[in-house]
Amino acid sequence: MALSRWGADPEGEPLSEGTRALVHELLGVSAEDAPRFDAAAVRASASRLTADDLAALAGIVGEGNVSTDDEQRLPRSRGKSTPDLLRWRRDSEVPCPDAVVAPRTDDEVLALLTWCGEAGVAVVPFGGGTSVVGGLEPDAGAHRAVLSCDLVHFDRLESLDPVSGEAVLGAGLTGPRAEDLLAAHGFSLGHSPQSFPFATIGGYAMTRSSGQASAGYGRFDEMIRALTVVTPVGVVEAGRAPSSAAGPDLRHWLVGSEGTFGICTRVTVRVHPVPEEVRHEAFRFPDFATGVRAVRAVEQQGTGPTVIRLSDETETALNAAVAGGGGGDDEAGGCLCVTLFEGTPEHARSRHEETRAVLLDHGGVSLGPGPARSWEHGRYAAPPLRDSLLDEGVLVETLETATDWSGIVGLRDAVVGALTDSLEAGGTLAAVLTHVSHVYPTGASLYFTVVAGQRGDDPVAQWRTAKHAASEAILAAGGTITHHHGVGADHRPYLSEEIGEVGVRMLRAVKAELDPHGVCNPGTLIP
Amino acid sequence: MALSRWGADPEGEPLSEGTRALVHELLGVSAEDAPRFDAAAVRASASRLTADDLAALAGIVGEGNVSTDDEQRLPRSRGKSTPDLLRWRRDSEVPCPDAVVAPRTDDEVLALLTWCGEAGVAVVPFGGGTSVVGGLEPDAGAHRAVLSCDLVHFDRLESLDPVSGEAVLGAGLTGPRAEDLLAAHGFSLGHSPQSFPFATIGGYAMTRSSGQASAGYGRFDEMIRALTVVTPVGVVEAGRAPSSAAGPDLRHWLVGSEGTFGICTRVTVRVHPVPEEVRHEAFRFPDFATGVRAVRAVEQQGTGPTVIRLSDETETALNAAVAGGGGGDDEAGGCLCVTLFEGTPEHARSRHEETRAVLLDHGGVSLGPGPARSWEHGRYAAPPLRDSLLDEGVLVETLETATDWSGIVGLRDAVVGALTDSLEAGGTLAAVLTHVSHVYPTGASLYFTVVAGQRGDDPVAQWRTAKHAASEAILAAGGTITHHHGVGADHRPYLSEEIGEVGVRMLRAVKAELDPHGVCNPGTLIP
Repeated sequence: MALSRWGADPEGEPLSEGTRALVHELLGVSAEDAPRFDAAAVRASASRLTADDLAALAGIVGEGNVSTDDEQRLPRSRGKSTPDLLRWRRDSEVPCPDAVVAPRTDDEVLALLTWCGEAGVAVVPFGGGTSVVGGLEPDAGAHRAVLSCDLVHFDRLESLDPVSGEAVLGAGLTGPRAEDLLAAHGFSLGHSPQSFPFATIGGYAMTRSSGQASAGYGRFDEMIRALTVVTPVGVVEAGRAPSSAAGPDLRHWLVGSEGTFGICTRVTVRVHPVPEEVRHEAFRFPDFATGVRAVRAVEQQGTGPTVIRLSDETETALNAAVAGGGGGDDEAGGCLCVTLFEGTPEHARSRHEETRAVLLDHGGVSLGPGPARSWEHGRYAAPPLRDSLLDEGVLVETLETATDWSGIVGLRDAVVGALTDSLEAGGTLAAVLTHVSHVYPTGASLYFTVVAGQRGDDPVAQWRTAKHAASEAILAAGGTITHHHGVGADHRPYLSEEIGEVGVRMLRAVKAELDPHGVCNPGTLIP
Repeated sequence: MALSRWGADPEGEPLSEGTRALVHELLGVSAEDAPRFDAAAVRASASRLTADDLAALAGIVGEGNVSTDDEQRLPRSRGKSTPDLLRWRRDSEVPCPDAVVAPRTDDEVLALLTWCGEAGVAVVPFGGGTSVVGGLEPDAGAHRAVLSCDLVHFDRLESLDPVSGEAVLGAGLTGPRAEDLLAAHGFSLGHSPQSFPFATIGGYAMTRSSGQASAGYGRFDEMIRALTVVTPVGVVEAGRAPSSAAGPDLRHWLVGSEGTFGICTRVTVRVHPVPEEVRHEAFRFPDFATGVRAVRAVEQQGTGPTVIRLSDETETALNAAVAGGGGGDDEAGGCLCVTLFEGTPEHARSRHEETRAVLLDHGGVSLGPGPARSWEHGRYAAPPLRDSLLDEGVLVETLETATDWSGIVGLRDAVVGALTDSLEAGGTLAAVLTHVSHVYPTGASLYFTVVAGQRGDDPVAQWRTAKHAASEAILAAGGTITHHHGVGADHRPYLSEEIGEVGVRMLRAVKAELDPHGVCNPGTLIP
């Protein structure tokens, strides 16, 4: 990806004149006032590694797989949160990992971690570089330097069991590459988070990612049949059977550990045949609370959509405005709900019919397949749009949580209120768009997109203040600090509140056992 | 329950003359040669606790909630495995917990665990007493005595959130009692393991239980929205949201921990409305491999039965023989598959139709609802039958595992072969009945019922030898040592092979952190 943007294009798509005029008018911002990224001005921090260190590393991973070049270190220095993207535009000094290493085997990873422990050097795993929570911060902790460990060589479909519907995927495979390799055998994984074009299998596992089709195919953690994590004290292979009662499920001790216990090198995932049929239908609900009741009824009855999403009034209206033109009366107002159904024709049809009946029964009005197809078509377009808005001086970022159904509307109101109050106190209008995109029998996720004007000299601090207010509101209302973005450095201050002091002690105990020198991603997750 | 039997009846139902004649002829056993349980001969081990100990315990849990009476200690000394039941019939000296305590609150549990650590006394939690893997062994480990901690006072439906479909249940509630309390509000849990009549909510959670309707309602671990575990260093409340990416899922660090990290006092579970409709249909497949392919297709397509079970040829034939009479030609031979569908009428109907189409497509022949209703009617009858067979000198026991679909038939053959070889080497015929009763997209469970003649002076050793052969076969074929019975003392020797040395270190690290004096169920789970 480009350093300062989502995607490969270093320039990005410019905003239309109309949008530029609109944000200027509403938010008082324009490209003239917003610093742009200047590649020539950027300076990577000097590597703190010695020639002996580099020789030792080359001995472990091979000469060509160690680099201290700025072109290698700079793109592995940050993720893709709005604070990350703003820092590229504003800070010319970039704290970087001291080297990038790319081991090729589990044995090399183990040797690397052993060397790190002896040499007092930390290590941050790198997959797709898509973290939006500071999971890539090159934080050396108490150590003298920090490496970025790129999983690029773990890039194979290692095996496929078509009878069991299981594939062993290298941790460094991106979503599209994994799907291509599976499609050659008629299979699909069905994991489609917004980071899909770049994020990797190992990253999905280590951050407990959840994709847009989680209603149908489950969260990524639910797709995991087994995984391999190389820790400083040895390799763990967790997951001996689809399900077991042989003590606590160690897969769930490792999934979500964000590189703090070791490095994930491969994941065995559940796969399914490429669906024969995909059906789409969108619905409109008069208001968010009514839509939430309907979506809840669908999930609690178990009608079986593959995708189900509900936008609140603000998100529905803003998306319609951005799409422009097309929206006749029939598609205006209220809350948009998008559904997709995949499988055999009979399976997709019966799921569609039962879901449709429940949604109509609960106050929904069908909008036909059109808006659902539009959503599917544009579902990876938001991050590049964010870049263009940042270039225009707009502050735009997302955050997410989850809670029980009985608390969903109240939590939405609390978070929208906290964000709006914080940002408007800084003298800008703020719009907060909300949707429900992951549903469970007992509750759902909430995803917020915040749009405001950048204010003052330090929009990163402006955002951190708003985000802190939202985080406090989430925890006060009983929500989780993150439903699918992960903890990273950004949510780490809230983890004690999330899991309690005994919970933190459990994480620390395993960390101390598996990573006695504390070299594994010390800036992340564990407080 | 009665000491030496499953269920409350200390006498049990006698076998029919025909069955007695049959087992005498085939297995060479009869009641005359089999020792019977003699309540008068049984002697509990003397309590090793001092008067000061008992006064301290009474100070913590209240005078009426501490007992060293034999009538309290004897029923908490063993579970309900066949070795347990045989020991009641053969051993008059019974190693017992040194006292039974019944705390009433989390604070009392915490104070109890603190006292145990200071006093050097171990503690084994007790729910329904249904362990079949030695989970109740009153093993003091390195300590001077051991308590049985009965959760009987944690017996309330603490709260119900009908919108979210969540209930907070005391750990000491039995299955039927929990269902009654929920039914008063129109809800059901839907967890129905064979231990259902006696086992408790806390036991389900701590052993990762799975019920007969797992296809529809999930394993018990999947029903858990949150749980409370009181550890010696404090209370953990795990599960803040239906799903989260805030680090590893600590629910799964605790679920399956079998009392070795602390004592579970309450569980928040997902509940659903009492189903409006239940539909039944049974099918016959020509052979086990064909049936496995059909059941796999159902699960991988996600057609959605609430219950789906497939018996192999031996189980089908023996069950038909035991049921006797009724079986006309249409129900004879092959492999019986039972399906149930629950929900709203439309939901049950569409799931039934899609499932039926797949099963017929894969070689099934419908037998109508009858055999499925019969299965449902008799599904808790097997354990009492086992008691009557043990009284007749028959050796009868069950064991279970799980693996991927591609390995199911091979694993079945390997385990049946290992059990048959071991038992027949001892000079008895042996029949091994197998069924698949829990299905997952990537694999399934296998449940074995073994019937042979008791031989020699020590049928417990006879069984241990056969079970060890089966366990070795399971591990060699890549299966899990237990799919839903748990680890206990019986499977502990196999856990290192199951989860690897680094996995064991992870368990030990958390154990050391939460239970620094090692007082929590030291005879169980962790090698």
